Amino acid sequence: MTTLLRNGIVLPMTGGRTLLDPGSVLVEGTDIVAVGPVAEVDTDPRAAGAEVVDLTGHAVLPGLHNCHLHSGLLRGTAESLSLWDWLKTYVDPAHRALTPEIARVASLHCYAEGLLAGTTSVMDMWRFMEGSAEVADRLGLRATLVPYVADEEGYDYFETIETNRRLLETHAVAADGRVRSWVGLEHLLYCTPTAFRAAADLAEEFGTGIHTHSSESLWEVQESLTRFGRRPVEELHNRGVLGERTVVAHCVWLDDREIQVLAATGTSVAHCPCSNMKLSSGPARVGAMRAAGIAVGLGSDGEKENNNLDLLEEMKFASLLQKVTTLDPTTGDPWDVLTMATIEGARALGLDAVTGSLEVGKRADIATVDLRGLHTTPILHGADQNVPAHLVFSASGRDVRDVWVDGRRLVAGGQPTTFDVASVRAEAQAAAEELFARRAALTKS
Amino acid sequence: MTTLLRNGIVLPMTGGRTLLDPGSVLVEGTDIVAVGPVAEVDTDPRAAGAEVVDLTGHAVLPGLHNCHLHSGLLRGTAESLSLWDWLKTYVDPAHRALTPEIARVASLHCYAEGLLAGTTSVMDMWRFMEGSAEVADRLGLRATLVPYVADEEGYDYFETIETNRRLLETHAVAADGRVRSWVGLEHLLYCTPTAFRAAADLAEEFGTGIHTHSSESLWEVQESLTRFGRRPVEELHNRGVLGERTVVAHCVWLDDREIQVLAATGTSVAHCPCSNMKLSSGPARVGAMRAAGIAVGLGSDGEKENNNLDLLEEMKFASLLQKVTTLDPTTGDPWDVLTMATIEGARALGLDAVTGSLEVGKRADIATVDLRGLHTTPILHGADQNVPAHLVFSASGRDVRDVWVDGRRLVAGGQPTTFDVASVRAEAQAAAEELFARRAALTKS
Repeated sequence: MTTLLRNGIVLPMTGGRTLLDPGSVLVEGTDIVAVGPVAEVDTDPRAAGAEVVDLTGHAVLPGLHNCHLHSGLLRGTAESLSLWDWLKTYVDPAHRALTPEIARVASLHCYAEGLLAGTTSVMDMWRFMEGSAEVADRLGLRATLVPYVADEEGYDYFETIETNRRLLETHAVAADGRVRSWVGLEHLLYCTPTAFRAAADLAEEFGTGIHTHSSESLWEVQESLTRFGRRPVEELHNRGVLGERTVVAHCVWLDDREIQVLAATGTSVAHCPCSNMKLSSGPARVGAMRAAGIAVGLGSDGEKENNNLDLLEEMKFASLLQKVTTLDPTTGDPWDVLTMATIEGARALGLDAVTGSLEVGKRADIATVDLRGLHTTPILHGADQNVPAHLVFSASGRDVRDVWVDGRRLVAGGQPTTFDVASVRAEAQAAAEELFARRAALTKS
Repeated sequence: MTTLLRNGIVLPMTGGRTLLDPGSVLVEGTDIVAVGPVAEVDTDPRAAGAEVVDLTGHAVLPGLHNCHLHSGLLRGTAESLSLWDWLKTYVDPAHRALTPEIARVASLHCYAEGLLAGTTSVMDMWRFMEGSAEVADRLGLRATLVPYVADEEGYDYFETIETNRRLLETHAVAADGRVRSWVGLEHLLYCTPTAFRAAADLAEEFGTGIHTHSSESLWEVQESLTRFGRRPVEELHNRGVLGERTVVAHCVWLDDREIQVLAATGTSVAHCPCSNMKLSSGPARVGAMRAAGIAVGLGSDGEKENNNLDLLEEMKFASLLQKVTTLDPTTGDPWDVLTMATIEGARALGLDAVTGSLEVGKRADIATVDLRGLHTTPILHGADQNVPAHLVFSASGRDVRDVWVDGRRLVAGGQPTTFDVASVRAEAQAAAEELFARRAALTKS
């Protein structure tokens, strides 16, 4: 099947800050086979007989990579609390109350919400992830599944190295390569050195990556210095988990040496500006990390920390947080932030050979954004070109009109093709109510 | 005409942190005549024969007050520049190129965009504002019009005290009281002491308010100390323009004494978090200002500083900016931010006797937000009530479904009743192109 995405404003995200205005993208099967000016692609022999999607007034960009997500169903239910209080009082008891079926519905809900907002690839740290794999396969997006492994005393309700191994045995690579599994470590303070060693071994054995959190709050840095005599990233390095296939979420409170350690080991970072703001964690040193050569992708974090899964909105937060923190308006440039949400996110996830930009030979993972709303008017061209700024500062996931992954159209004109919104909503509502009832019962006992 | 807004989740914003879940609002003519539980309002004799709007799955809240806006058409065209460079190179030449007709279309565009996102009241500092008055009247929203007066050398292309007087003579109060005019002063550094004195006199003569900017950037504080020997708010006080009918936009870099001066004079503040972040101005001390008793409303600032006019999004930025700046997650609580966007904004504008909350006897200025999207699921009740958090953190202006002002339904099911989106968009596009062409011609000459 061949599809011609015709006459949009195309942001290839292949390195330069250029766009095709207007331009077209030709998709054959799972792949992009042409990207270019409209007239050029129109005359491509492979375009003859293609299904034509008219994208006049739309931006066409690579599908977005959400590099740090936790599936969940707790949205909006415990606000204005400090990070560790909130984890202890609300989040951890919800983990104790979780069942595989509730976990599956949480992934269904989160992946569906993200997909409608232009996310074609998620890295999800969650639990009972066979259900997440099933959902990702059915919905059609790209997913990297990372069980939340923890083994410190008191955290026995998380996943274990054993359950992570079982997931890898069945789902290291699944769904024609769209679904992958990695090794997950909840956190330095939730996992023993034994778990870290086992995680590194497991990743080595399956040739896969490692995902963990670090340096989210100042408290945690102090705690790492007290317990281990090292700052968190140095302790992670000491425990042998940094490297080219490792992604660390947050990395807010890094000193220069920790940035050097991440860069030297080729470790990537998932930057979560909304979460870091909302939980009062702090502003990450994004400019310094990227200047050191670290691949910094964007992450929404969970629905409970954000509280939505909209990477277009996340781009605005990423830009504006840098600008207000540095007091330097040249930081957080729209093109930089678009890069982080697309090709740099793909690089962080080790997917940049396959996706993350619009170029011939890559998989057709594409999102279109309708620019015909009043909030994205006027559209100007040439020297006054304002579409990159519109995407970062004015648009939101609600403007996404079409999404393709591996050449398959998963959202068409704002409507999903692989699920029904009302059904997902009803399933999520019921699962949340069950989860809250189970949590209340546990808390009482 | 009587309308029953039935079975929504109603946030009256009358002081407490309570909501009616579910609840109804009864509107008769221009006014709210009942607010209460569904069964109670159903049996109100005045509800018999009312038009019923079923708001199951929707939040019902007071219409939002945008306390600082500049109409404009420059969205996204000059990014990543420092405040004063950007003003000098891009914004001021656009002011020189502006015509009354382009200015009118800019207001049409901005008011229409805001209205669709739930804004029922704007304070707009702009130029040639007879056109803005005409547009506000036609669209049906509440507007406080404030000409940009400046008289320092080199700023002769702004409005003058004379043109401000002419607007007051015809539009001090217009459109059945929905449209008002105030006295505007661009900025301490753009206006001579003579203009300040004349502005204070003019406001006194017409019994109206004053709006100006202050303390937006650190540079400006230094400049005020150098030029006047006083910090900006103290210099504004010295120039006699602070008081209960004055609203000052931004107020980012205030010291404790300046906060005391604003509080003691009863001056209000328009807080513009997106603009303050995007222009790298800095984080305002919102908690300290509100603790001192200052009414702090929210403002989008212009489309060129934001780059959209979505007060639901602005609430998220307001909350998260406080949380990340103070590192205190108890700041920026959803209820506090909802208060700023509604009744406290109305108080800042001197409209709180008329609007800003849902209570009997006030004008029916109401917005509904559709909560049935995946990004606002689940909806929980009682102790786990999450709708206030959904409104601030998860929803956006794109979820607004209905808007009433003075009891007139201006948006119905997401569609405007007083304008056509495609026509406004076409007018705005054409006017922007004309403005850019005129600016280019001026810059060349």
